[in-house]
Amino acid sequence: MTEQASGLLMVLTGNGKGKTTSAIGQAIRAAGNGMKVCFIQFIKGGDWKSGERQVMERLADLVDFRVMGRGFTWKSDDPEKDRALASEAWAYATDAIASGQYRMVVLDEFTYVINYGMVDQDKVFEVLGKRPPGVHIVITGRDAPLELVDIADLVTEMREVKHPFKKGIKAQRGIEF
Amino acid sequence: MTEQASGLLMVLTGNGKGKTTSAIGQAIRAAGNGMKVCFIQFIKGGDWKSGERQVMERLADLVDFRVMGRGFTWKSDDPEKDRALASEAWAYATDAIASGQYRMVVLDEFTYVINYGMVDQDKVFEVLGKRPPGVHIVITGRDAPLELVDIADLVTEMREVKHPFKKGIKAQRGIEF
Repeated sequence: MTEQASGLLMVLTGNGKGKTTSAIGQAIRAAGNGMKVCFIQFIKGGDWKSGERQVMERLADLVDFRVMGRGFTWKSDDPEKDRALASEAWAYATDAIASGQYRMVVLDEFTYVINYGMVDQDKVFEVLGKRPPGVHIVITGRDAPLELVDIADLVTEMREVKHPFKKGIKAQRGIEF
Repeated sequence: MTEQASGLLMVLTGNGKGKTTSAIGQAIRAAGNGMKVCFIQFIKGGDWKSGERQVMERLADLVDFRVMGRGFTWKSDDPEKDRALASEAWAYATDAIASGQYRMVVLDEFTYVINYGMVDQDKVFEVLGKRPPGVHIVITGRDAPLELVDIADLVTEMREVKHPFKKGIKAQRGIEF
């Protein structure tokens, strides 16, 4: 297998807006090329439906969209439950990567899971590093750990130059979710 | 109208990967919230079908996806034709912004059109600055001009930290298009 045909490990990090939306766009682009995608949201969760979730339901033949967290932040009222959900989502991701069913697996907001020690970090880097040839992996989230940057093929830092929250404009439907 | 309800001008710039994919994700998110989107590609064009184009055809009730350029680069064999196409696409965009039909208008790779002087820059900043309330605009492309940054509500610089092209891995289907 040539290098060109092997799957890329892509990391979208930084404090600016555009990480998850870029991962969604990457999933759409891959899906439009007939590549089956598994998109796992590690933090967002619950019954609440984001815009992307509603569109992805229409593309269910192309994208398996899994919302496996339970909220927006790590200011948690139940850290044990968060840990259990993160483990479950990571087990799901590991299976998806190994399954041969997907050409792309997106681990949305996964850096938080790594950085907060919700999963075994050595195991994470092993699974990512030994992914099957041809499987692209996209990881999003702030503060990508150096070890992840080291093994990645592509890293983009989304740097905040200007953000409306700083002007007092609140998060709004269609933009932030 | 409160500030919160007014449309944002968002600029995705920088030399890293993630600008167009983020705009696609933003369009998907808005569309999933029932907001009609007009997505105009200023540079890409022709018969050739990107992954995003193929998926957007399935979402035609939510997203008007217009491919109005004719190629990948400005190393043009026919600058007059490029200028004519850019003018046409900008006229289309101006109408879309004013029409009241769309809650979001994406001008993909539009910074190149501005920077190469393909359209009247003063007119561009006037149209963007005087957009109707409630219309979000997303502009992508490298080297966003300072005047655009000044009037934008949100600016993210996609900074290249690591890119596979530097390792000799070529552009590939599903990742770059």
